[in-house]
Amino acid sequence: MTRPIYNFAAGPAMLPAPVLRQAQAELRDWQGRGLSVLEMPFTGEAYGEIERQARADLRRLLKIPQDYRILFMQGGASAQFALVPLNLLGRDGRADYIDTGHWSRKAITEGRHHCRLRVAASGAGQGYDGLPDPDAWRLDPRAGYCHITHNETADGLQFHHIPDTGAVPLVADMTSDLLSRPLDICRFGLVYAAAQKNIGPAGLTLVIVRDHLLRPARPGTPGLFDYRSLADNRGRLNTPPTYAVYLAGLVFRWLLDQGGLAAMAVRNRRQSERLYAAIDASDGYECPVRPADRSQMNHCFRLTDPAREADFLRKAEVCGLLNLGGHPARGGIRASLYNAMPDAGVEALIDYMAAFVDGQV
Amino acid sequence: MTRPIYNFAAGPAMLPAPVLRQAQAELRDWQGRGLSVLEMPFTGEAYGEIERQARADLRRLLKIPQDYRILFMQGGASAQFALVPLNLLGRDGRADYIDTGHWSRKAITEGRHHCRLRVAASGAGQGYDGLPDPDAWRLDPRAGYCHITHNETADGLQFHHIPDTGAVPLVADMTSDLLSRPLDICRFGLVYAAAQKNIGPAGLTLVIVRDHLLRPARPGTPGLFDYRSLADNRGRLNTPPTYAVYLAGLVFRWLLDQGGLAAMAVRNRRQSERLYAAIDASDGYECPVRPADRSQMNHCFRLTDPAREADFLRKAEVCGLLNLGGHPARGGIRASLYNAMPDAGVEALIDYMAAFVDGQV
Repeated sequence: MTRPIYNFAAGPAMLPAPVLRQAQAELRDWQGRGLSVLEMPFTGEAYGEIERQARADLRRLLKIPQDYRILFMQGGASAQFALVPLNLLGRDGRADYIDTGHWSRKAITEGRHHCRLRVAASGAGQGYDGLPDPDAWRLDPRAGYCHITHNETADGLQFHHIPDTGAVPLVADMTSDLLSRPLDICRFGLVYAAAQKNIGPAGLTLVIVRDHLLRPARPGTPGLFDYRSLADNRGRLNTPPTYAVYLAGLVFRWLLDQGGLAAMAVRNRRQSERLYAAIDASDGYECPVRPADRSQMNHCFRLTDPAREADFLRKAEVCGLLNLGGHPARGGIRASLYNAMPDAGVEALIDYMAAFVDGQV
Repeated sequence: MTRPIYNFAAGPAMLPAPVLRQAQAELRDWQGRGLSVLEMPFTGEAYGEIERQARADLRRLLKIPQDYRILFMQGGASAQFALVPLNLLGRDGRADYIDTGHWSRKAITEGRHHCRLRVAASGAGQGYDGLPDPDAWRLDPRAGYCHITHNETADGLQFHHIPDTGAVPLVADMTSDLLSRPLDICRFGLVYAAAQKNIGPAGLTLVIVRDHLLRPARPGTPGLFDYRSLADNRGRLNTPPTYAVYLAGLVFRWLLDQGGLAAMAVRNRRQSERLYAAIDASDGYECPVRPADRSQMNHCFRLTDPAREADFLRKAEVCGLLNLGGHPARGGIRASLYNAMPDAGVEALIDYMAAFVDGQV
């Protein structure tokens, strides 16, 4: 290939090049054992070593205290929209949800089937151009938890300060920003994330939950998805998605090699600020999101002449800048800059944006 | 490596060597697109092509009629133990289960939480040394379905004739023998299988279900696991386990190249008969399962001197014959011969068994 390709997909998304190289090199023979990781029994010593190391590295990256359990689950964040209330609340339990955009609305729609759900704040009135001010949230002190979507992948919003919910446990869907920067996990009761952004491939979902929130899941919940049983069995009641866990483990190792989450935060912030500055400085583009609440992962913007967006996307593909289309529910342009995106990808995008406006592509 | 290695694990299990070679070759660049399958957006054209082809090939392999839907799910067969009753039965629905060993007992234990479950026949009284005679099953004509475990991976039993359940739909856990031989799928209302035996890697679960059985799942079921919604969305309500689907697709293609399931049946039967004949002909080994009900996938046997089994397993590993230990619940020896096992692996095992008894290893 003469021109490098950059993949701005929102997920499944770019994986770090060294991770893909290692996965390829050892695909048929892991560390001289003569077996592919794909073929290893999950109860065996070799896979046990892979999973133990992945858990230990994740704990180290996020500084997860011992009273939090790490569950390796399947089904994506959408499964957790139901499993969180089914596991954390008894029958007739209440929960507060903060409505910040597309994915929190999905969580709310599903959650309503499983608990007495109240929307304690919403950005809908302002067209989701920013996060509702936490000082104005009307929180129910009897709620079993308060749910936020920490990064709105479709709308391009992100929490940059952890809201204070007092004694009510904070639950966060961190699918698209977990591992993008350091996190004070002790401020959360539960965090969940599908892997296919910063963590690894699709097919693995992380749940990190504080011990004392664990209770038997509501009767009727499939036993395989009972957090407490999973925690008692180190996150595996049946065959885990072994290859996805292995790949996530390679990503964790790569993150540690990069200097951990503090180093990723510096790079992610720098890349994000570069891109938003280019958008704000140009007459050709506009970002609808309030600067304070803009996502450092998913940069959603429009062309000031939306009729030219299809052309923008088509020519970008030709230039090797892939998957820049916005979420179907929102349209426009979306550039996802996860951990694996190199600086050169951001520069190439910014150069292309300028050239497109100037009519040079 | 000077000596070939053969992996007799019950699952995750051997994958066909050409599948692993192709996966390795194109891991970082699928068909010159410049992207790994691991990084492709699931809504994109490239992954769409992969999934469409996999569905079409699976339909061709199993001759699945158009009134059956194929769902690509996550969570393994253990999740289906709950999801089958939650999806197929209304509230207070009844179901009959046939108890044939370890995995049917697991399905029964979970199923009891979700329906009025009756064990219509059981092999427990005979220590699961054979399948209960279908003529003696006491079936409830009002049952919503009758559930069987088509192959008992831990006990080494397999159905070789599809039982007749009249108007009651037959539901089968075929995790360990789907795709091992042709199947008259029209005799089943629903078939499910975790992938990590004959289908692909862990992390993908196939559900094949007859259209007219689809109804809204029971209230309280996580929406992501609602068969009808999944069917209406071609098996994907959220990000599918894309890489597992891709690998399963490579396996489907390999199966077609081998001559399809009829060819696999011939090879699997030949390998299985060779191994059981060696067991039966030797004073050193015994198979507790009645010949008519023996599994062609999982060959469970004992040493006539069980005290030597640990030594048998240890020396087998040294000889490159891996993962021959029985299921922890059953002990003894278990040789799983799935589609990917070459004849040479079976011959190597038979040679080793003879040498071990003769004191030559």
